[in-house]
Amino acid sequence: MRAAFVLYPGFTALDLVGPFEVLTFVPGVTTLLVSEHGGPVTSEAPQLALADSLPLDEVPAPDLVLVPGGPGQADQMDDGPLHAWLRAADRSATWMTSVCTGSLILAAAGLLEGRRATTHWLAADQLARYGATHSDERVVVDGKYVTGAGVSAGIDLALRLTEQIAGPDAAQLRQLSIEYAPEPPYAAGSPHTAPPHVVQTLLDRKDASLSGGAA
Amino acid sequence: MRAAFVLYPGFTALDLVGPFEVLTFVPGVTTLLVSEHGGPVTSEAPQLALADSLPLDEVPAPDLVLVPGGPGQADQMDDGPLHAWLRAADRSATWMTSVCTGSLILAAAGLLEGRRATTHWLAADQLARYGATHSDERVVVDGKYVTGAGVSAGIDLALRLTEQIAGPDAAQLRQLSIEYAPEPPYAAGSPHTAPPHVVQTLLDRKDASLSGGAA
Repeated sequence: MRAAFVLYPGFTALDLVGPFEVLTFVPGVTTLLVSEHGGPVTSEAPQLALADSLPLDEVPAPDLVLVPGGPGQADQMDDGPLHAWLRAADRSATWMTSVCTGSLILAAAGLLEGRRATTHWLAADQLARYGATHSDERVVVDGKYVTGAGVSAGIDLALRLTEQIAGPDAAQLRQLSIEYAPEPPYAAGSPHTAPPHVVQTLLDRKDASLSGGAA
Repeated sequence: MRAAFVLYPGFTALDLVGPFEVLTFVPGVTTLLVSEHGGPVTSEAPQLALADSLPLDEVPAPDLVLVPGGPGQADQMDDGPLHAWLRAADRSATWMTSVCTGSLILAAAGLLEGRRATTHWLAADQLARYGATHSDERVVVDGKYVTGAGVSAGIDLALRLTEQIAGPDAAQLRQLSIEYAPEPPYAAGSPHTAPPHVVQTLLDRKDASLSGGAA
């Protein structure tokens, strides 16, 4: 199985590397990094760039596609080569997946219409613009379309995919290999459980960002 | 505060990117990627390389050092420029930290003698060789030496560091930003909770790997 991880400028590194780490060492899975033009791609943090990727047209029919999110997602919403590649991949892929705001790119390409999906909690209201229904789960499985919530949800998503691709023993081997027995220091990982003033701070930053102010 | 993330060939990507993602966006923290010679460094997965890093001698006195683990750790155990840099950094740094088998590099450089530390569960017996005492916690804090267990523990470690560096609100903001409300699909993230046959499979692979057989 060939799993293509999509890069674009301004992707969030952990969105990509979390699931990459899980899936790369699953027997039978070959992971590839792809981007519109190939070559190096800089993440949201300018000091962290991936050195190389394959151009989209060299990976025409992957079995699995994963689209990460990140601030650069906003520049990937217009139709163009990436959307065309995603639609073409969708015709033969077994799994079309995303982490965080990567689902908005899948949605803008027309792949989530009428489907349940998730995204980063700050972007949940945007899915409806593309005919998708936001589901408040950490990993949403709607047929072959599997979307994860914000950033760190990509690890949970990839373990779920590993179970589907290679079985529960393979998924547990990967979980134990990455020693994934998380101990978050706070109950702050969800807007439902974080202290209200912490939630409000991020909502305010989002509003400032959307209105062109300093985030 | 300058936080230097150490790269070497064969590092595990998630060991580095998990804590990088948390710490990069903490106000007052500047994250840097460093490696012995600078430039691009390839991870454990050959298709994933980071495009650039600073040579060690350009970052002489970081405030925080983080050493990731990975199969390449075995080639970083002899004294040399990295160990010398780690010892020099230790003299002025506020925090000396590691994820996974990165602690073995700190230990081999002489920095964990007489201290409590952790590492990947498969490597726990190796800490004693360097005078460190293995502690069975996910994140071990012994003064300014903070070590994390395997791979994914770097996220928990970085949130704990964020609390120390910038306070609990800052840590909770980062946790909510990366939507870190994990839902591991199994209780397989620790050798104490994973099914015995899953644990045994990884122990057997380790033995095969150490004896030169196919992993």
